[in-house]
Amino acid sequence: MKVAILGYGTVGSAVVKALIENEKIIKARCGQNIIPVIALARSVKKNSLIPVTQNADEILNRKDIDVFVELMGGVKEPFAIIKQLLKKKKNVVTANKAMLAYHRYELEKLASNLAFGYEASVAGAIPIIKVLKEGLSANHILNIKGILNGTSNYILTHMSQKGSDFKEVLKRAQELGYAEADPSFDIEGFDAAHKLLILASIAYGIRAVPEDILIEGISGISNEDVYFANEFGFTIKLLGVAKAQDSKVELRVHPTMLSKNEMIAKVDGVMNAVSIRGDMLGESLYYGAGAGGLATASAVISDLLDIARGQLKTPMFGFKSDMKYSLLPIEDIYTKYYLRLKVEDKIGVLSKITQMMSENSISIDSFLQKPKADETYSTLFFTTHHTFEKSIKNLIHTLKKQKFIKTSPFMMRIE
Amino acid sequence: MKVAILGYGTVGSAVVKALIENEKIIKARCGQNIIPVIALARSVKKNSLIPVTQNADEILNRKDIDVFVELMGGVKEPFAIIKQLLKKKKNVVTANKAMLAYHRYELEKLASNLAFGYEASVAGAIPIIKVLKEGLSANHILNIKGILNGTSNYILTHMSQKGSDFKEVLKRAQELGYAEADPSFDIEGFDAAHKLLILASIAYGIRAVPEDILIEGISGISNEDVYFANEFGFTIKLLGVAKAQDSKVELRVHPTMLSKNEMIAKVDGVMNAVSIRGDMLGESLYYGAGAGGLATASAVISDLLDIARGQLKTPMFGFKSDMKYSLLPIEDIYTKYYLRLKVEDKIGVLSKITQMMSENSISIDSFLQKPKADETYSTLFFTTHHTFEKSIKNLIHTLKKQKFIKTSPFMMRIE
Ligand SMILES: NC(=O)c1ccc[n+]([C@@H]2O[C@H](COP(=O)([O-])OP(=O)(O)OC[C@H]3O[C@@H](n4cnc5c(N)ncnc54)[C@H](OP(=O)(O)O)[C@@H]3O)[C@@H](O)[C@H]2O)c1
Ligand SMILES: NC(=O)c1ccc[n+]([C@@H]2O[C@H](COP(=O)([O-])OP(=O)(O)OC[C@H]3O[C@@H](n4cnc5c(N)ncnc54)[C@H](OP(=O)(O)O)[C@@H]3O)[C@@H](O)[C@H]2O)c1
Repeated sequence: MKVAILGYGTVGSAVVKALIENEKIIKARCGQNIIPVIALARSVKKNSLIPVTQNADEILNRKDIDVFVELMGGVKEPFAIIKQLLKKKKNVVTANKAMLAYHRYELEKLASNLAFGYEASVAGAIPIIKVLKEGLSANHILNIKGILNGTSNYILTHMSQKGSDFKEVLKRAQELGYAEADPSFDIEGFDAAHKLLILASIAYGIRAVPEDILIEGISGISNEDVYFANEFGFTIKLLGVAKAQDSKVELRVHPTMLSKNEMIAKVDGVMNAVSIRGDMLGESLYYGAGAGGLATASAVISDLLDIARGQLKTPMFGFKSDMKYSLLPIEDIYTKYYLRLKVEDKIGVLSKITQMMSENSISIDSFLQKPKADETYSTLFFTTHHTFEKSIKNLIHTLKKQKFIKTSPFMMRIE
Repeated sequence: MKVAILGYGTVGSAVVKALIENEKIIKARCGQNIIPVIALARSVKKNSLIPVTQNADEILNRKDIDVFVELMGGVKEPFAIIKQLLKKKKNVVTANKAMLAYHRYELEKLASNLAFGYEASVAGAIPIIKVLKEGLSANHILNIKGILNGTSNYILTHMSQKGSDFKEVLKRAQELGYAEADPSFDIEGFDAAHKLLILASIAYGIRAVPEDILIEGISGISNEDVYFANEFGFTIKLLGVAKAQDSKVELRVHPTMLSKNEMIAKVDGVMNAVSIRGDMLGESLYYGAGAGGLATASAVISDLLDIARGQLKTPMFGFKSDMKYSLLPIEDIYTKYYLRLKVEDKIGVLSKITQMMSENSISIDSFLQKPKADETYSTLFFTTHHTFEKSIKNLIHTLKKQKFIKTSPFMMRIE
């Protein structure tokens, strides 16, 4: 089986290296050689393991290639290339979650009867696409909770274990190569959202794009939130959450307070994990490296092996017909909340706040007032019982207008 | 697709129930109905959801059945039936790990070009067969560590968290239905060994049977071992371990001291988990329910769905050709050990013991002497650096003959 590698960067070069180094086991597994014959890049590559060209057409027009592996990144350009390949009835493998978050259904349509692998697009080395599409296929998926971004998890772990400040840890993560120079994609939740949307297509057939769903990042989290979490038996994780209730599915990405006892709360550092609950299987969890050249190549090559074995022919998301789920509007999300307020230390303030809460039908589950940071302001921490997103948003809107509020209220959801 | 259910007990009846109740999603997933048409049992079943017969031949000779699902248990009888079915070119699904531990290679031979599913035979609802055979297929598997028996993990968890005695917890587990009236199969490591052997066939193509490998259970573990583990940052788990080094593979099942920080050490209660390390992916872990009717049915039906999608045609263990691994002899296992000795409290005893250790080339990593239990005897705890199984066995053999040893030395391996 001849393979072309479109993009010879971190993942592309690791795929080529592994196809060569693990040649024997790969052949033992599928009965044939999987041979990377040519790669594409923008720049000239010296000492590459296979020929690398800068001329896309030179590769795309080759008739002898069985599978094209897209590892360029970006959205528009790879989408255009893959469309063109699928129209020519070529098999495709990609790790490109950003593109899939927007264009997966157009690709699904074009890919009918072709192999289209995207195992590497979610949670790196963890074969979560296969698990969800095939392994758990008898189940109604009740919910998915994923730590889908290693950079954010690294930062949150260090904030929690070392009491360090968000900015400080981010800088350290950048120095260690765990975070990009422009980290907003990772820490603002977009990367996790792309992956969540892909999982939601397999679990529910939901056609949403990032703009349709709630996405919040971790940059607003302070040491005080970490302090509260530790005191009250919580851990803070950036989660991608998908939940089904009747025919509605809620999709959201945000920092989440989780009980320390949950398995997913125990996942530290750059590691990824996805917890999936099904009506038959109960709880399950899948844990592993979410990124890195070789780890991601493990997933890319598993797709190639499936193709070599003639096994990657299910419909792209494992649905032959629709299950008719639709997206729950954001304001109808119903969960528990955490609120941190910095308020003037004056008589009557607390009673005003609790009155506003009850006016929004929000009831308090726990309350903590921290020893004063300075002379005139206090920090108040609340957790609430279940309430609607619109109620909490309305409360925050009202609070913001109050004179006794020092800085904008900070809110987190609790699972 | 018409299915016959051979065995209408815990799992068989759950499979039938789920095929009926989740009919819609199953059809959406594979494009056809999967219909359980008849079941086999020894006794008459009233109010069953489908016809149940006591006449095996009535089912086995039916020409309209596409897949036969064996959920009877036992070894000889199901093996005879499945052989017969495969010879008739019938597709088979089974959850029977005991039978596979002994006869899987005979079945593999007969099953060529047929579908043979056994996802439910290891770790219940966790799709670990698929993960290892397909998801991680690009990797050389460096090691596998599995909590493969929920009963044992339940007992160990309670001993550790509540300080309770082995016998006490076992009784409680039996009352709760987590342990059988005759629990030896679970607590002596045989059930875990069956599952480990199946995983070892997928990872390494090893043809071992239970008698070939090291199997030890948890019944010798005392509160003192739990005390030591807690003090020194360990957790005790019954693990199935497979490890490759060059062309040798070691397979063993035994209670293991593990660092509390490892993900698999955090798996509590009746849950199962399998940690797999690959040369490309690094560490990964898969966690979920290891038993229970519906959870096991989730795995059985995923096999049926794979068959309906025409996807279960790889060779049974995912190897088209041999990788030429062979089993490491037990005495050549090289790891760290924990030793608990009850000795006479006399001058010179410790120096004799340490001398015997050095005569066996065993060096001490940590040592603890517990405050005396009674006037004349002391409990000594040792952990060692890496050494060979034959050395530790030899040491124990020598120790047993000493007059100053009160009860037989207790040994556990450390990972
Ligand atoms: N890195 C990870 O750990 C990871 C994990 C999961 C998924 N992914 C996904 O995998 C994909 C690749 O990631 P990466 O980290 O390997 O990226 P990368 O290191 O930046 O490599 C991208 C490669 O594609 C080439 N390329 C980009 N645009 C091109 C164009 N228009 N024409 C020709 N060549 C082009 C680049 O050429 P030059 O070398 O000349 O710049 C480079 O060789 C992305 O979709 C990413 O989201 C990555
Ligand atoms: N239970 C679990 O959680 C679990 C998990 C993973 C794997 N498994 C495996 O799944 C299999 C079934 O387990 P199970 O718990 O469902 O067992 P079970 O409750 O004891 O059911 C066994 C069924 O098979 C029938 N049967 C047994 N021998 C038979 C024979 N010779 N002829 C006709 N019928 C026969 C029994 O008939 P009667 O009803 O008349 O006795 C019963 O209906 C076993 O291989 C087990 O290891 C079980």
